[in-house]
Amino acid sequence: MSEFFTVLPPDEALARLFEHLPPAPQPEGISTAEALDRVTFEVIRAPASLPAFPRSTMDGYAVRAQDTFGASQSLPAYLNLIGEVPMGRAPAFTLAPAQAALVHTGGMLPPGADAVVMIEVSQKAREGEIEILKAVAPGENLLRVGDDIAEGAEIFPAGHRLRPQDLGGLSALGLTYITVARRPRVALLATGDEVVPPEAEAQPGQVRDVNSYSVAGQIARAGGIPLRRGIVPDDFEALRSAAKAALAEADALVLSAGSSVSVRDMTAEVVNGLGQPGLLVHGVAVKPGKPTILAAAEGKPIIGLPGNPVSAMVIADLFVAPTIYKLQGCPALPPRQSVRARLTHNIASQAGRVDYIPARLITREGEGWAEPVFGKSNQIFTLVFADGMIVIPRDANGVSAGETVEVRLF
Amino acid sequence: MSEFFTVLPPDEALARLFEHLPPAPQPEGISTAEALDRVTFEVIRAPASLPAFPRSTMDGYAVRAQDTFGASQSLPAYLNLIGEVPMGRAPAFTLAPAQAALVHTGGMLPPGADAVVMIEVSQKAREGEIEILKAVAPGENLLRVGDDIAEGAEIFPAGHRLRPQDLGGLSALGLTYITVARRPRVALLATGDEVVPPEAEAQPGQVRDVNSYSVAGQIARAGGIPLRRGIVPDDFEALRSAAKAALAEADALVLSAGSSVSVRDMTAEVVNGLGQPGLLVHGVAVKPGKPTILAAAEGKPIIGLPGNPVSAMVIADLFVAPTIYKLQGCPALPPRQSVRARLTHNIASQAGRVDYIPARLITREGEGWAEPVFGKSNQIFTLVFADGMIVIPRDANGVSAGETVEVRLF
Repeated sequence: MSEFFTVLPPDEALARLFEHLPPAPQPEGISTAEALDRVTFEVIRAPASLPAFPRSTMDGYAVRAQDTFGASQSLPAYLNLIGEVPMGRAPAFTLAPAQAALVHTGGMLPPGADAVVMIEVSQKAREGEIEILKAVAPGENLLRVGDDIAEGAEIFPAGHRLRPQDLGGLSALGLTYITVARRPRVALLATGDEVVPPEAEAQPGQVRDVNSYSVAGQIARAGGIPLRRGIVPDDFEALRSAAKAALAEADALVLSAGSSVSVRDMTAEVVNGLGQPGLLVHGVAVKPGKPTILAAAEGKPIIGLPGNPVSAMVIADLFVAPTIYKLQGCPALPPRQSVRARLTHNIASQAGRVDYIPARLITREGEGWAEPVFGKSNQIFTLVFADGMIVIPRDANGVSAGETVEVRLF
Repeated sequence: MSEFFTVLPPDEALARLFEHLPPAPQPEGISTAEALDRVTFEVIRAPASLPAFPRSTMDGYAVRAQDTFGASQSLPAYLNLIGEVPMGRAPAFTLAPAQAALVHTGGMLPPGADAVVMIEVSQKAREGEIEILKAVAPGENLLRVGDDIAEGAEIFPAGHRLRPQDLGGLSALGLTYITVARRPRVALLATGDEVVPPEAEAQPGQVRDVNSYSVAGQIARAGGIPLRRGIVPDDFEALRSAAKAALAEADALVLSAGSSVSVRDMTAEVVNGLGQPGLLVHGVAVKPGKPTILAAAEGKPIIGLPGNPVSAMVIADLFVAPTIYKLQGCPALPPRQSVRARLTHNIASQAGRVDYIPARLITREGEGWAEPVFGKSNQIFTLVFADGMIVIPRDANGVSAGETVEVRLF
């Protein structure tokens, strides 16, 4: 397979994978109350205007604005108080000239009224009469029909990930059941003769499975459903049949491949045989994570992560998470939280690849610093003890202590 | 209740509420695989060292480093190849002087070996012999016992929210079942004679419930379990009995109170009667959201949100979310994603209160700008069409177009 081992920059590698994904996600109908973080399948439009009736935004008096023109503290306008608007019901009366009606915040304006005078700029006069101490303009202190949203307006495009306020907006419109993108099912296979499940007593030479759990967390965060499908020994036939079965029940397959070169090559060969077009990328210009495998089989993406836990998470972040968003129809990833901080130590790097180094954020004399958590890419605790990853761009030849770097927060 | 209506700055108000929360969360045992975003109940320490045996980080030869000293391309060290370390098992042999054994990445070093020579700096010599072309130092290309984590080391303090890599680290140590803080159950009551459920046909004068859905999303994001307990009419006895029942089954109660002054006062009175110490704060120096109610009853927090959807979400963000973290034992909120951007329009503000204005982020000539989404605090779609909230600090008297502001992203 060595002819495939041309190392690609990560964005180019991802673009190559995306060419082979399905053009649209699968739809699923769900209750809006359960739709937090789900992604809209189609454009959603307002089925009606909101508010559906003119609504007071203050406690006060519904009036005809022109009846208040010229009113002041010293020369109030006198209006006849004809009633009170009940909350939750349409008023039973219409406002004629020189009339006013008590209205509460959120109450419906009676026909004829076109403004609300705040209670604070009014006072009781005789029985059945109020004094208005300040003029209001038409439209003041109220929402007109459609001021919140107009009938037919686009609320969301397809591919919008729903936030708490979005559930509120849908509820306001009575849209209690919507169509979202189905959450992609992402099968996860760990490989390696030395890997045992976390619940096993590890014998000398054995290590417990890390990637099936850390990467499952990353898949869930991106909106996918992780399907842990266990550990496969370093055997071509065993891997082929496990990968085939896992891919058949899922929308995507993620393998955490063994770390030695021979095992990696075997993984690439298995992946290439799972369907068309097969292997797309074998090797990316990222450290750690160079021996990454990207493939597709009949529209399903397959991502081969390096076996080292740190490399596996870096690559899952760069390739698995964006793929899951893409499978849900999201045009872009949500903005990534990152901070700029000064570097406490020199970091060596090599131009031509992007470097990721786990780092802790610390404060020195009120200033933010990034302290690298040095270690090898098979030390998962370098990530556990870090707050984020320092990113050293492709064109940099290392960074010196004191310089400012970008830290992508976890 | 007017003697309580002293408006407090939000941090002071929150501190007053926190004084009355339980000192520690409730514990709950769960599977590590299900523990993403859960919060540790207690300190977790490593029950064993990792790796548990010296482990190669390269494909190569396990050697005694001193046997390679002085080796070079022109003067190789010759070592006897005595075998291959099988993956996942302890080698059946011990390395004597001048011996080497083939080892794969992740394989266990045989007793006697203290370094690994990368395959790239070796070559086959005669049968059963290899040439080492470069010296290695003791410890090179391997992890020693405990290099990832040492037995007894603290992995997490209590109050740590678990991330994907943390699940990986726990799995590596065989910690498949852990104790986390129970998720706080947060009962949600909407109030108002005009409010109907989202599935109802809203009649003139009626509006559908927004806050029970938007705030439920905020509660879930913070790690709480929202319990929507429906809509209560503006009636003292109805509200009192609904609030009492909701509080009895939950760890916290959130009411979205009506918007008119009389209803707010009634809510404060009901809340004050639910238990000791009762009402703590009535009014905060935040816009929108001034008529906020904070209370506690026998160790359970009660938060009265303003009824307007925008105010309700601003106040839930400032008070409900931190309370849910606190109830889980988190010492601090996760870092809040915010950006700095230039303001497209003037914004008026009043010194002495914090202002929150929904804003869209846009790009003009490659620069980030924040465009306010103007509207009233009962227009939920101002939040739907926004990317975050501009924060105008307490001491500012408005901000002019072109100035740089902080935007807290949703």
